[in-house]
Amino acid sequence: MLMQIREATEADVEAIWPIFHEIVAAGETYAYPQNTSKEEANRLWMQGPRKTYVAEQERQILGTYFIKTNQAGGGSHVCNCGYMVSSKARGQGLATSMCEHSQRVAVELGYKAMQFNFVVASNEGALGLWTKLGFETVGRLPRAFNHPRLGYVDALVMYKWLEP
Amino acid sequence: MLMQIREATEADVEAIWPIFHEIVAAGETYAYPQNTSKEEANRLWMQGPRKTYVAEQERQILGTYFIKTNQAGGGSHVCNCGYMVSSKARGQGLATSMCEHSQRVAVELGYKAMQFNFVVASNEGALGLWTKLGFETVGRLPRAFNHPRLGYVDALVMYKWLEP
Repeated sequence: MLMQIREATEADVEAIWPIFHEIVAAGETYAYPQNTSKEEANRLWMQGPRKTYVAEQERQILGTYFIKTNQAGGGSHVCNCGYMVSSKARGQGLATSMCEHSQRVAVELGYKAMQFNFVVASNEGALGLWTKLGFETVGRLPRAFNHPRLGYVDALVMYKWLEP
Repeated sequence: MLMQIREATEADVEAIWPIFHEIVAAGETYAYPQNTSKEEANRLWMQGPRKTYVAEQERQILGTYFIKTNQAGGGSHVCNCGYMVSSKARGQGLATSMCEHSQRVAVELGYKAMQFNFVVASNEGALGLWTKLGFETVGRLPRAFNHPRLGYVDALVMYKWLEP
């Protein structure tokens, strides 16, 4: 079962939506409104970013990520990415594959560093994974995320310089 | 010479532009392209944010700031502000007055904290001022800003909880 990561097209919107919706409606990991509509999701995930990718296996889309410039002007050498994996495919290394892929894409696009602006501290899976992949926790925003079960929790800023 | 801070109107766009342009064209403190156009400036400073204010003295606009929600969803209790002071009016306490004003506005609008996402570390004036006004440096982004004279410098994330 070969996993392929390729750039998303308009035709993938329908397959991305259930993954996005499942994660965002839970409200535990992304700073998007839990009731984000499909149209807004499309704007946030497909239209706003510089590029969007999907991870598919046997023509089934199981994960997706975007890459965009994090700050303009003097900050434009740093990119930002967001990753989502379907609950059907958790624990199979998809996030790792997508993050490694995104770092190669970032370098190809000319970025020198990658920043995650808002990793919810209670999202230990993501935190552990990004750390393993070389991201450093460079900031901690006290009580910056209102978690639906846990209340106010910290959010972390993670960063990796991509050039040798 | 009484200084007044009031909400900006469309009629203020012409007076905000020279302040914005002077600061952004220098490229040393804001992560906006140095050649940002007047139309784009208007979008960034007036249309995008939740509210924009001007500081004026004898009907002359000498400073301006915006306030907006920093992250949506579970992050929407934290606001973000940006401040600009005309070179004609530096060192007169305008930034302090605007920052204190913005904290009151933030509380009125229901925000619980204020975050500055990207304070260029070489901008010692701003850094010292925000620190004096109770903001904590909660993050340091290594070489995240390409300064036109200094090359890559760090950017800081600063944060203040506004509720007692």
